[in-house]
Amino acid sequence: MKRRLLLVSNSTLHGSGYLDHCQQHISSFFGKDVKKVLFVPYALHDRDAYTKTARDKFRTLGYDVSSIHEASDPVDAVRTADGIFIGGGNTFRLLKSLYDNKVVTEIRRRVMEDGVPYMGSSAGTNVATVSINTTNDMPIVYPPSFAAIGLVPFNINPHYLDADPASRHMGVSPEHRDRFQEADKSTPCSREQRITQYHEESDTPSVLGLREGSMLLVEGNRATLLGTTKARLFTRGKPTVEYEPGSDLSFLLTDTH
Amino acid sequence: MKRRLLLVSNSTLHGSGYLDHCQQHISSFFGKDVKKVLFVPYALHDRDAYTKTARDKFRTLGYDVSSIHEASDPVDAVRTADGIFIGGGNTFRLLKSLYDNKVVTEIRRRVMEDGVPYMGSSAGTNVATVSINTTNDMPIVYPPSFAAIGLVPFNINPHYLDADPASRHMGVSPEHRDRFQEADKSTPCSREQRITQYHEESDTPSVLGLREGSMLLVEGNRATLLGTTKARLFTRGKPTVEYEPGSDLSFLLTDTH
Ligand SMILES: [Ca+2]
Ligand SMILES: [Ca+2]
Repeated sequence: MKRRLLLVSNSTLHGSGYLDHCQQHISSFFGKDVKKVLFVPYALHDRDAYTKTARDKFRTLGYDVSSIHEASDPVDAVRTADGIFIGGGNTFRLLKSLYDNKVVTEIRRRVMEDGVPYMGSSAGTNVATVSINTTNDMPIVYPPSFAAIGLVPFNINPHYLDADPASRHMGVSPEHRDRFQEADKSTPCSREQRITQYHEESDTPSVLGLREGSMLLVEGNRATLLGTTKARLFTRGKPTVEYEPGSDLSFLLTDTH
Repeated sequence: MKRRLLLVSNSTLHGSGYLDHCQQHISSFFGKDVKKVLFVPYALHDRDAYTKTARDKFRTLGYDVSSIHEASDPVDAVRTADGIFIGGGNTFRLLKSLYDNKVVTEIRRRVMEDGVPYMGSSAGTNVATVSINTTNDMPIVYPPSFAAIGLVPFNINPHYLDADPASRHMGVSPEHRDRFQEADKSTPCSREQRITQYHEESDTPSVLGLREGSMLLVEGNRATLLGTTKARLFTRGKPTVEYEPGSDLSFLLTDTH
């Protein structure tokens, strides 16, 4: 398995510039052999502006960027790419466009068989997994399926957020929230509760909650947590587990996950 | 048009009990002629527990509750209902179950033709509209369509939340957020931005942002905002507008919205 993936939680951290917080990881990930990266801007409406943002950033790292939306044949653009970067935005819009342009299978083949390095950020990380069932985005368009590219056998929740005990988000006060969660659960407040609802469904894979500032590096059958924040793993029917940056998460790549 | 709807943003407000904040509106909505309300608990996994919660509350208001999941024939349960209440939870799970049980068309027919009163809360409000494109929920299951029951010709965003300028939600600092939104928009922080992304798609209907504490009463071709909080209306290509409680929103029921 030649697979090489850099799956980033978020593109912009605490007021730094676009992809600044992970730029050293980007450079070592694409390395010196890749000269040009194929950018997929499908997650945002203004693809030209988005491509300019990505192109400007990647140029500072020494990479040219071609955008799939500028190619006459998107499948051919994937077929000839040396590296792929799928940016964030709306996950539903992104996945629908990947299907509309018939590139889902070709991206999977290039990454899994040819070893083309794949970087995703936010929505671009969601679509690298089994499905988009654990995106945070609003379902503004209807994709033909929630099944995604499937480069790893688990799901990711990017921008993972811990519950804020002081928050009155959703209008449920903290003391009431516990009672309410027991009694009714019809207003899930926290990200953890949402993922727990996902695992109420049968045959649902593990979900790795990637907090902002963290990313997952996959090289063949090895997976390593990079960045500055811990990640939280949710597995159906098991307690959740926290992992420190640097943790070996290779076990997630086996089929049982 | 006999349609009568009570579309509630949220079931539980600021630590009060389940449906407490709107109970007087529920009583005047179902009135004295309805004795028994058909409850639809499809949005939560534990339908028995959810039905008990709803049944206990409605009993205090003088109504019996039968649950659609206890009926041998769900379509027949809708066909014979005197009133319908669809509770909140996960909107995707709810809509998929409505389709799986083949009750979408029959609910629409009973409400629009027979004048059966329909109350929805949160996800139950989402499915009363054109589509579930503006739900806040996680897409934990894949419904056969995002098209919903269509009792009104616009969409609703329940639990509408104003952007918190002090928040570092999504890891974007306030000063950076403005710049980032201009340049990149790949990390939409606020509910308003999400709805704006929806309206980047063509032919998308208006979206009424119902803050917690507010509800919409529809009687035939009249719509009135009830409750204690303002609502925010988003219309594609137009400025957003705020409406005070008590506002006449009947214009939303015309086809151009
Ligand atoms: Ca995103
Ligand atoms: Ca809900």
